[in-house]
Order: sequence, then C-alpha cells, then structure tokens
Amino acid sequence: MDILNIIDDRTSYRGRYKDTKVAREDLIEIMRAGLAAPSGCNKQTTSLIALDEPELLAEVKDLIDPPICQTAPAIICVLTQRVCAYRDKCFAVQDYSAAIENMLLAIKSLGYESCWYEGHITDDDRIGERIAKRLGVPDGYELVCILPVGIADEPVKRAKKKAFNERAWFNGFEKSENVIQ
Amino acid sequence: MDILNIIDDRTSYRGRYKDTKVAREDLIEIMRAGLAAPSGCNKQTTSLIALDEPELLAEVKDLIDPPICQTAPAIICVLTQRVCAYRDKCFAVQDYSAAIENMLLAIKSLGYESCWYEGHITDDDRIGERIAKRLGVPDGYELVCILPVGIADEPVKRAKKKAFNERAWFNGFEKSENVIQ
Repeated sequence: MDILNIIDDRTSYRGRYKDTKVAREDLIEIMRAGLAAPSGCNKQTTSLIALDEPELLAEVKDLIDPPICQTAPAIICVLTQRVCAYRDKCFAVQDYSAAIENMLLAIKSLGYESCWYEGHITDDDRIGERIAKRLGVPDGYELVCILPVGIADEPVKRAKKKAFNERAWFNGFEKSENVIQ
Repeated sequence: MDILNIIDDRTSYRGRYKDTKVAREDLIEIMRAGLAAPSGCNKQTTSLIALDEPELLAEVKDLIDPPICQTAPAIICVLTQRVCAYRDKCFAVQDYSAAIENMLLAIKSLGYESCWYEGHITDDDRIGERIAKRLGVPDGYELVCILPVGIADEPVKRAKKKAFNERAWFNGFEKSENVIQ
C-alpha cells in the first residue's frame, strides 16, 4: 500500500481487539521500523520491548488503571534514555516520537490498529514505572509509551482535523497563494 | 513503494541539491502527510510554511549561519504552539516530531531527500526566531525545525546504527527469545 495512503489512513484506535495473535515476524518488522527512525546526532535513545506472552501481558494489563489496551494481543513498550545529543541539548522526546510514528505506520500497513498511549502511562500515578519494573528495565531508561497491536474488532473512527489551509501555507504565515483544497 | 522500504531507505541527507524546482503538488502532499500525524488530545499544535519563492528562499538562507540548506530548492518550516493537551501536560514536541517523521517519509517516497534540522535552528543564536520574524509568524508560534526538500546531487550516505537486538527485545529488558537477526 502506498505510504501516503497509509499516513492518511492511520488513526488512533481505542476499541476492542480481536483475539488473534500477532505474528512474531510482524512485531519484529514493526520494531525494525521504529528503530529506523532518525535520532538527534544519531544517539539512538529509543529502545523497545514487545510483549506477546499471555501471562506476562495479563500481569502488565493489571497494572494499567483506569484500564486501556485490555484486549490487545500484543503491546510494544517504548523506552527512552534522556541523554544529551550535544552540550545540554537532549532530543530524546523527538527521537522516540519519530520511532512511534514509524511504528504506527508499520502497524497500519500490516493490517493492525494501534494508539499512542503516553499521558496515561507517564502521569503522576506512574503506570509506566510500574510496567518498567515488572519488565526488569534498569535505571537510565524510562518507559514513556505503550502501543497496543492487534486487529480491530470494532469500527475504526477518525478524529476530525482542521482544514489544510488553517495549518499550512506557502512563503509566509497564513499565506495561501496557489493552495488548492 | 512499500512503506517499510521507505522507512528503511530514509536517511539524513546533508549534501548538495540539484537545481530542480519541487512541484507545488508535491509540497502540498508532503505537508498533508505532516498534518495527518496524530497529536496529543488532537490539539493539532503543528503548523507548516513551505518556502519555494526564490527571492524569499535566498533571504531565509542568508539568516542561517553557519550555512545549511543553501542549495535546497524548497524548505518546509515547522511551527509549534506549546499549548497544554490536558492539565499541565504539553505534547507539542511529540506532535511536531510525528509530523516531521511523516514528512520525511513522504519526501522520500516522492523521490526527494531531506534532513531534520532542529538543534541548529533552536540554538542560542536563535536562527529560528529570525526566520519566523521574516515570515510574519506571530507570538504563540515557535519555528523549531526546517526541512530542505530537493533532489540529491551527491551520493546519499547512511548513518550506522546499533544492531536490532541491542535496542529491541521480547517480554522483558534485554531478552532476545526467538529473535532472528
């Protein structure tokens, strides 16, 4: 499928997943896509842990309250190392965000759905820290996001977005010369 | 071209560009890809300005010291609004990073090269602020990144990356069960 269609079709799916296992080779492909993202000064600050072992998945899901991802047959956990790229400049957030976007596109292209769950995981109740502890993640790494992976069992809805010419222009702020909607 | 190949082929190109104009419809397609990225609570904090008018491009390039992007026939400027998605949580960096990654993939898929220039633009010499001023960007928006767009005129080199199993595992930190390299 063409990349521009995939980019356009990707949406944040928060519904139930079918009880179909995600093939290991698909999870590997998705993680490869994530790790292929650029990173500031090539520091490669992002690491990934895919969960597909049913007992471990159930334990991790139990740590998520209020519950999300409960029916997902696989979950990819995104870890970051907040190291400086140069001087005091850290691009860890940019790095993992680019990796996540690549994975969301790979997930979609392989016929699955997902959703970028970050705030829920890094909020004051520190669900991410508890998941990281269960997975044996050492100091120096932070678990900042989880991505469910699975086949949608409900209709996929689309968020409404602003019009193109409210957010993109040519040759100056809010200039719309020659932009055809 | 398949998305996983595009993701794999994308690389940060810092060489010279050919003197070939980028078609308006391609720049629109690239910006559409950027705006299709997800954003925290759908706040859509990212906006874009494409520059392809030769005199304006020359003026903007003159503001970049040390020089980068000097031969690019088009440049996309990435703007962000640092607003909260909920409570004190701001996902503006995540939002624009996902948008940038989408654009880098769209650029590659359309036969062009690019590079994510952020540190150079947001450093203490505030090149981004000076470009924003020239483009009439109002308060409340920050210019955080520029992306050159053009056809490569030199060989495209590839950054060396760590092996997959140094950054990705299954069912626990540094566990590599069943991962085939």
